[in-house]
Amino acid sequence: MSPDNTARISRTDVPHMKWWGWGIDGVSFSYADMPNFAPFIKRQVGLDLETRVAQPAPSFDELDVPTSRIPDDLTNFLIDVVGADNVVSTAHERVLHGSGKSIRDLMYVRAGDFARLPDVVVYPASESEVAALVALAVARDFVIIPFGGGSNIAGSLEPELAEERTVVSLDMGRLNRVLDINAEAGLARVEAGVRGPDLEAQLKAAGWTLGHFPDSFSHSTLGGWVATRSSGMQSDRYGDIADMTKGLRVARPDGILDLRPLPSTSTGPSLKEMILGSEGRLGVITEVTVQVHRVPEAREIRAYLFRTWAHGVAAMREITQSGLPVTLTRVSDARETSFSFATSKASGGVAALVKKGLMRYLKARGWDLDAIALSFIGFEGSAQQIAAIQKAVRRVVKKHEGISIGTGPGVLYDQKKFDTPYIRDFLLDRGGAADVSDTAAPWELLTTMHERVYAAAHGVFDQLGVRGWIMCHLSHSYRSGACLYFTFAFVEEGPPQIENYDVVKNAVQQAFVDVGGTLSHHHAVGVEHAPWLEDVLSPSGYRVVAGLLESADPGRNLNPGKIVTVE
Amino acid sequence: MSPDNTARISRTDVPHMKWWGWGIDGVSFSYADMPNFAPFIKRQVGLDLETRVAQPAPSFDELDVPTSRIPDDLTNFLIDVVGADNVVSTAHERVLHGSGKSIRDLMYVRAGDFARLPDVVVYPASESEVAALVALAVARDFVIIPFGGGSNIAGSLEPELAEERTVVSLDMGRLNRVLDINAEAGLARVEAGVRGPDLEAQLKAAGWTLGHFPDSFSHSTLGGWVATRSSGMQSDRYGDIADMTKGLRVARPDGILDLRPLPSTSTGPSLKEMILGSEGRLGVITEVTVQVHRVPEAREIRAYLFRTWAHGVAAMREITQSGLPVTLTRVSDARETSFSFATSKASGGVAALVKKGLMRYLKARGWDLDAIALSFIGFEGSAQQIAAIQKAVRRVVKKHEGISIGTGPGVLYDQKKFDTPYIRDFLLDRGGAADVSDTAAPWELLTTMHERVYAAAHGVFDQLGVRGWIMCHLSHSYRSGACLYFTFAFVEEGPPQIENYDVVKNAVQQAFVDVGGTLSHHHAVGVEHAPWLEDVLSPSGYRVVAGLLESADPGRNLNPGKIVTVE
Repeated sequence: MSPDNTARISRTDVPHMKWWGWGIDGVSFSYADMPNFAPFIKRQVGLDLETRVAQPAPSFDELDVPTSRIPDDLTNFLIDVVGADNVVSTAHERVLHGSGKSIRDLMYVRAGDFARLPDVVVYPASESEVAALVALAVARDFVIIPFGGGSNIAGSLEPELAEERTVVSLDMGRLNRVLDINAEAGLARVEAGVRGPDLEAQLKAAGWTLGHFPDSFSHSTLGGWVATRSSGMQSDRYGDIADMTKGLRVARPDGILDLRPLPSTSTGPSLKEMILGSEGRLGVITEVTVQVHRVPEAREIRAYLFRTWAHGVAAMREITQSGLPVTLTRVSDARETSFSFATSKASGGVAALVKKGLMRYLKARGWDLDAIALSFIGFEGSAQQIAAIQKAVRRVVKKHEGISIGTGPGVLYDQKKFDTPYIRDFLLDRGGAADVSDTAAPWELLTTMHERVYAAAHGVFDQLGVRGWIMCHLSHSYRSGACLYFTFAFVEEGPPQIENYDVVKNAVQQAFVDVGGTLSHHHAVGVEHAPWLEDVLSPSGYRVVAGLLESADPGRNLNPGKIVTVE
Repeated sequence: MSPDNTARISRTDVPHMKWWGWGIDGVSFSYADMPNFAPFIKRQVGLDLETRVAQPAPSFDELDVPTSRIPDDLTNFLIDVVGADNVVSTAHERVLHGSGKSIRDLMYVRAGDFARLPDVVVYPASESEVAALVALAVARDFVIIPFGGGSNIAGSLEPELAEERTVVSLDMGRLNRVLDINAEAGLARVEAGVRGPDLEAQLKAAGWTLGHFPDSFSHSTLGGWVATRSSGMQSDRYGDIADMTKGLRVARPDGILDLRPLPSTSTGPSLKEMILGSEGRLGVITEVTVQVHRVPEAREIRAYLFRTWAHGVAAMREITQSGLPVTLTRVSDARETSFSFATSKASGGVAALVKKGLMRYLKARGWDLDAIALSFIGFEGSAQQIAAIQKAVRRVVKKHEGISIGTGPGVLYDQKKFDTPYIRDFLLDRGGAADVSDTAAPWELLTTMHERVYAAAHGVFDQLGVRGWIMCHLSHSYRSGACLYFTFAFVEEGPPQIENYDVVKNAVQQAFVDVGGTLSHHHAVGVEHAPWLEDVLSPSGYRVVAGLLESADPGRNLNPGKIVTVE
């Protein structure tokens, strides 16, 4: 099925993020043009950016990286499949592939604490090479961990601590092609290792778009999205990756699992929905057939303000349930809104509006300025279609006492939406641990969810004696409910302690599940969220999933230990 | 969770279809008011309704029903759970619960050929009773086959021929209540045994609708829809039952599998999508939380004519892909259109239009009257919304050279849409075997699919030396493809032979799969479609599903032998 390998990009052309943090080398967060940022951070978490001495990650050479345990004969078997150029055991490659980018991952890696790294990294150039590697894993009893862009924040990429067998990280980065676009059905057949920007560029050249824009878009891959049930910024219109996925090819020990693209099917338990979210445990996804859409004529993100977060949430619910085809619904709570104000550039965006006296105007109208909620709503289509949808949205926004503040903030949001994760590294250099946790729940639970998660976080901040911060936005609206996306941070005197991070993270996750939500809306289970899976699926359901994974991989060769922890 | 049992309907109030055919006793197909019907049947399949002597089903007393094999102690165990009134081993109840209503089922049952019937029927009155029965099935090693409305046409309800253990049919009919409606999220928590009309009546009393109207609606149940991945007549707007299902409760041997309703979740392989379509093999579905909608202000089905079926299909594709929120898209091919004309009443409907000289007008415009395709499109909403959608639809229809013929035929179609299956019994009385097979495929395959299925059917009609008929409509449109729904029939001198039916059915199914479609869009796998599952899932995928079912029910106590035939 795959084109010949000679035209493949080489292993060294596969891009990677920094070994110690998010994103591209040389790019980092700066608050040089954000006059409100330093005062905000000092006020909220007591961190004085003027005086705090940054402690950046050590240089790679300072790290004590354990040596690879791969036996020579196995190296040779791997070379037989992918060629010597594509089998690498350097410390740098093994560290790069040893984890994702959760704050826990970053803390470990910066501390040089490599409990268990992959022993080798392989870069196959075709589906048949992937299939051969998977078959070899069973025949020679080693472990394969598929690797896409490495942006996972649930621990889905790390080898099990006690793993004694060889661990092979299988980097899919060379399988990066759009193979075929079927215009009539709007179906694109795409290799699983393609990264977001590369995928959209190939599609755009033919006039199409997938419309899947998770925060990790710049670095993550199609196969990774499918393997983790990702959701992107335009999911209100285009659906989650689960909705977009129509066909699949997966390399399994007994051959290629091939699911033809079908608009709908009544063929028993859904095999497609078993592969979705399987994190490599059912095999290695090699190819995905996705629903694509014609690139829209125009695209616009408008910003709105609501008196309170609750007003904004009610408006998003009404917009979604009335069937208006918006692409994005997002409402920051008061705290996240204040953070947005704090990260505004000196000129432009929300700050400019503030200068224009908007706040005085709202105060005069009786608004509590500390309760204001900033909202973004996205639109696509012809100019005429956008105008019609915006008119209907305006009516709903007005009903819920909101006001439009134009497209300026939306343009800025759209520009910088993929940059937020860089802030984590900036803070980590300065003793601050920041990360995100997301849930989804029916509409009527969202207020309680918000309150209970805040209470849980503040409770543990007090208990730990740290200055902490939590903020939230609603995104990804559905007819029956929505995703709540929380960002939390706390500051310690020295480097942040993983034990303390775990306490905060656990409190947030437990609140999600206790209120009736899910453990994650779009960040997968891995090992970090695995402790709550039985609560969400019920004990009986958990055993059904465990039985599926065990029966499909009895030798535990395929990314064992993820999703279901005890088998 | 369930209300107390005292107010439950009694076992004898659970409605059942005829033991020998479709629907309600006393209701049958009549062509008295259809002047074109008899000539049409004579012309197409050589059956002279004037002279052919009808051979109706025998009286029940003439049947030789094998006796129940249930041991006395097991009867007592069952009575302990549900009470003596709700454990029945009469021949009539066992025959009623021994199969669904495929034409194959009807041929067997009319012939008194009962290879293996359930030994006993139980009518639990609560989830806890269902749970106790499921646990007992494992403890005492008997087989449970859950029974909803009995309308299945894939063999999902029949015991395995060689089953030596006791087979218990578990009739869910007493669990028929809407337990709760959450207005904010539009989520209704409903017991699984409720039948379509009862469900819609309970929802309507509170101003809601599920909007799921399969052809079997009058007789089938919510739990049955979920267990078979049903799709209903308004799926274009409301989705398939898989889309509507948000939460589930399933009685399993180790307790209640409880999936909380979530708008979306990233929690590994989807357990919900494993229960959907599981045909009782993962347990007994006791409760479903479904997305419901406010009853629309108005509802309308309009009829259209296209020059050819291909013109109509192209129009449905454009309507669907442009995102117009129609509820129903349906286009009959030329043959099904001629059948619709033949079943028109003497007054009203399409016939009236013909009288009005419409056909002369079309002929004058150059239409080939033998190629015309009749189409229905459904609309819902406020009068204003409907008008706007219809205006946009009109534009697409016109572009594809179609014309609107108003709401009259749509009203008739809406009235009689659930009556079509009665025709099968009428024909069976007269030597005609008629049944349906449905598939789904991407848009670009639909023309080839249509041609190849026709060629396959005509090939085997010739081979068998029978006069046969096949017709088709497109329904259930999706962005990437649609369902094609075929009806086929053939006539023999005496009673139709099952062997001949199998040859025809097999040829149609094989064509579905060979062209790249699925074995069924909405009629499940059961045993009748099981031979093609490996083709659709690929051998590796088939084994994954087999592994799931085996690991979840190692003792084969839960409707064994369905979906996956060899384990």
